[in-house]
Order: sequence, then structure tokens, then C-alpha cells
Amino acid sequence: MSYKKGKEIYDGKAKKLFDVVGHPELLWQEFKDSLTAFNAQKRGSFEQKGALNREISALLYEELESKGVTTHRVMEIPPTAIVTKKLDMVKLEVVVRNILAGSTAKKFGIEEGKPLEAPLVEFYYKDDALADPFVSDDQALMLKTVRSKAELDELRSFGLKVNEVLKSTMERAGIDLVDFKIEVGRDADRRLYLADEISPDCCRLWDKVTGQKMDKDRFRRDLGGVEEAYREVCVRLKSTLKKGSV
Amino acid sequence: MSYKKGKEIYDGKAKKLFDVVGHPELLWQEFKDSLTAFNAQKRGSFEQKGALNREISALLYEELESKGVTTHRVMEIPPTAIVTKKLDMVKLEVVVRNILAGSTAKKFGIEEGKPLEAPLVEFYYKDDALADPFVSDDQALMLKTVRSKAELDELRSFGLKVNEVLKSTMERAGIDLVDFKIEVGRDADRRLYLADEISPDCCRLWDKVTGQKMDKDRFRRDLGGVEEAYREVCVRLKSTLKKGSV
Repeated sequence: MSYKKGKEIYDGKAKKLFDVVGHPELLWQEFKDSLTAFNAQKRGSFEQKGALNREISALLYEELESKGVTTHRVMEIPPTAIVTKKLDMVKLEVVVRNILAGSTAKKFGIEEGKPLEAPLVEFYYKDDALADPFVSDDQALMLKTVRSKAELDELRSFGLKVNEVLKSTMERAGIDLVDFKIEVGRDADRRLYLADEISPDCCRLWDKVTGQKMDKDRFRRDLGGVEEAYREVCVRLKSTLKKGSV
Repeated sequence: MSYKKGKEIYDGKAKKLFDVVGHPELLWQEFKDSLTAFNAQKRGSFEQKGALNREISALLYEELESKGVTTHRVMEIPPTAIVTKKLDMVKLEVVVRNILAGSTAKKFGIEEGKPLEAPLVEFYYKDDALADPFVSDDQALMLKTVRSKAELDELRSFGLKVNEVLKSTMERAGIDLVDFKIEVGRDADRRLYLADEISPDCCRLWDKVTGQKMDKDRFRRDLGGVEEAYREVCVRLKSTLKKGSV
């Protein structure tokens, strides 16, 4: 099976989306080299970033699929693209935290690095113009992002299942999975799929030994070594998951 | 029964708390004339504001009690004080909204005045230094503000019950109850009580006919006529509830 990239339909902060010629049920997702932070107020890029994120995402998606997590992937198109199912996207970002860091640590005046007794699931309303505000279940329902409380509980379980697989994979790669953000979508039968990507752009990853950050915080906080960190995550995952290039 | 004010134990933004001599199980709560907004960055006051809020709160507490809502009140001490039970305060503010306004309208880019299909209950973590951040149920549990999810549901039901009574009372007084904030506490048996106050300081009240604001937003937004609005709320409630001075 081969697919042909169609016309561009969306140019996002880190990815572009295209039609797939002859396949209205599919999307062509291309990973860009750009890096943005603080709702795109800070911008940067490095060569091969798109290719690295595509590859990291592929490795993690394959592992998740093998553990029963349904994903939007149809076919990898190295170095920087994948073909995916076209889904009805849920207007919520699902964040799962194992260790407090970032906005939630700041909001509660808690020092970064506090391990949580249980993973914390958070929902953020996907709206760039509003800077993706944090929402409670009741607000998510009020905004009609889901049809019922049961669908929110389903999102929470989905996030926790993804966390279980990712945390254990990262552990084997010598990395603490601090937190991550996923996006999800539904097919016509309202079945949930993991969509978007899983990469150092949307995870906090700390080296288990040195505590060094191996994720987009290196860019957000001007720590340097962004490219090296992304590359190291890719190398470790390939070795952990015993894969060549995916 | 008469009570004697003891030593001051807390000087808050709008109230002072004192011991009650010989009664370690009670508190003496005094309403101040001061007005503050934006986490006390804006400050003002007017004469008799404390007396008005004490009286409005008394009228509403009596109505709530008659409808089965337990409150912390033990005895009114006009013009500006009440004696209350000393409770184990829940570290959450409970906000109930019937019409979108204020921070939540702003957060979602929705124009003020949108009636909600169902009342929306929100929890805010009580911490002045953090400016009382909005929290989800999962965050409220993570912060150990309650012992269980069931206790959060209990708070939600309590807020909705208070809303039912207040909304109907205000309706009869020609006022739309837009939203309000309450504080609650527990006794040694973990029974819930309504505490703090209910006044134009912590409710949004709009005249049903003119739409005019009759609450602290007049102060927050420099609309003038703050004292007149508070006085009008008191007059209308006395007339609606057929009471002289309480």
C-alpha cells in the first residue's frame, strides 16, 4: 500500500496536516523542525527535530499498540511523516503527572520534583486563543467537550493506561516520566484513539541518574543541548525497544 | 445567654475573629467596613458596610436554616457581630454559578450574562499566597482538602442546595443570583456547616429589571453606588422575608 500526499489543510506549531489523495478517511501528518513554547510566544527550531520526533513517536506508539492502546497510526512515512486515521478530535488535552512540575507545581507553590502518591490526570480545554485553560470535569461538561461524565472517566482511564505503558518503557530507558500530554480522537463508533504525537515536545523526561532534563523544558528554559537531549531519548528508546530505525 | 468577646485571633480582609470568653467551642465573628478585591490589591471601605453585610447574611442564613441548611450561627450580636460554632474549615471555596460572569466567563472567552443550562459548581483552593487557584476534583484530592471523592460530591450537593434556596429568595426580591462563593466547615462528627458569610461581597446580584449590578463588582469595576447597592439588597430582603431588623 502506498499513499500520496494531498493538499495542505492545517499548518500547526509543530506539525502540518495534509489530505491523502483518494482517502478521505485518512490524514498525512508531517512533523516540522520548529519548536514553540508559551503558546507560541517563544519560537525556535533545529534540523532533524521533525524526523526525531516522528521516530520517537513511532517507537512509543508501537509499544503502546502492543500493550492494547489503540492509536491513529496507519503507516509510517520516514523521515518526517505518518499517515493516520482522520478522527473526531476531543477538544481536551489529557495531561498525566507522576511527579509535580511545570504549571501545576507553580500554581500550588510546590517545588518541582515532588513525586505524587498517585498519577494525577488533568484536562485542558484545547483553544489556542484562550491559551488552553485548565478545566474541571464540570467545566468540561459545560463546554460540551464530551457527551457525559462517563466519557470523561473513559478519557481518564485512557490517560492512565498510556501512563502505565510509557512510564515502564521510560524506566527501562533510564528515564523518569514526569508528566505528558496526549490528544485523543474518536472514530464513527466513538471508539477512542491516541492521536497527535508522543515526543519530548509533550513529555517531561528526566534522566534517572543525573536528573537532567531531556525534553522541551531545555528550550523553554534556555538550558541548551536541546537537540542532543532529543537525540539521546531516541537512541535510548531504540536500544530499550531493540529496534533499528522505525 | 450572653457571650463576651475575648482576644483577637485573626484579622482578615473583611472580618475579624475573636475568642468567646469561656467557650473554646465558639468564635466571635465581626464584620468590618473594609472592602477588598483582586486578592486585596484593591482596597476601600464605607461606613456601615459591616453592619449591612451582617444583617444581609443573617436574613439569608435564617432562610437557609428554615430550608434545612445547617449553618455555623449560634447568636447574632447586632450591629456587626455574630457568635458561631468553631469548625474545622474545609480548605476549598465552593462557587456556584447560574449565569456566566467574572473569572470563568473570561477564562472561556464567553460574554458575561450567558445563562447556564445547569448550575456549575467550582472549587477554589483557599490560599491567599497562591491567590486561591481553581482546582479540579483530582487536584482537590491530591491537596488533601477532603478525605475522599464522596466528600467532594457532598460539597457539591451542599452548594447546589444553598443555590436552590438563595436563587429562589433573590428571585422573590427581584434579583438574579448570578453566582456566589461559600465557605464550609465540619464539626467533630464531620457534619458540614455553612460558615463565613453570604453578602454582596461574595455573590453576584443583578437587578432582574434593569440588569444593574448590586454587589462587589460595583467596587471592583469602579461603577460607583456601592453603598446604595448593598443597602438596597438589605431593604429588599427584609421586605421579601417580612422581617424587621435581624
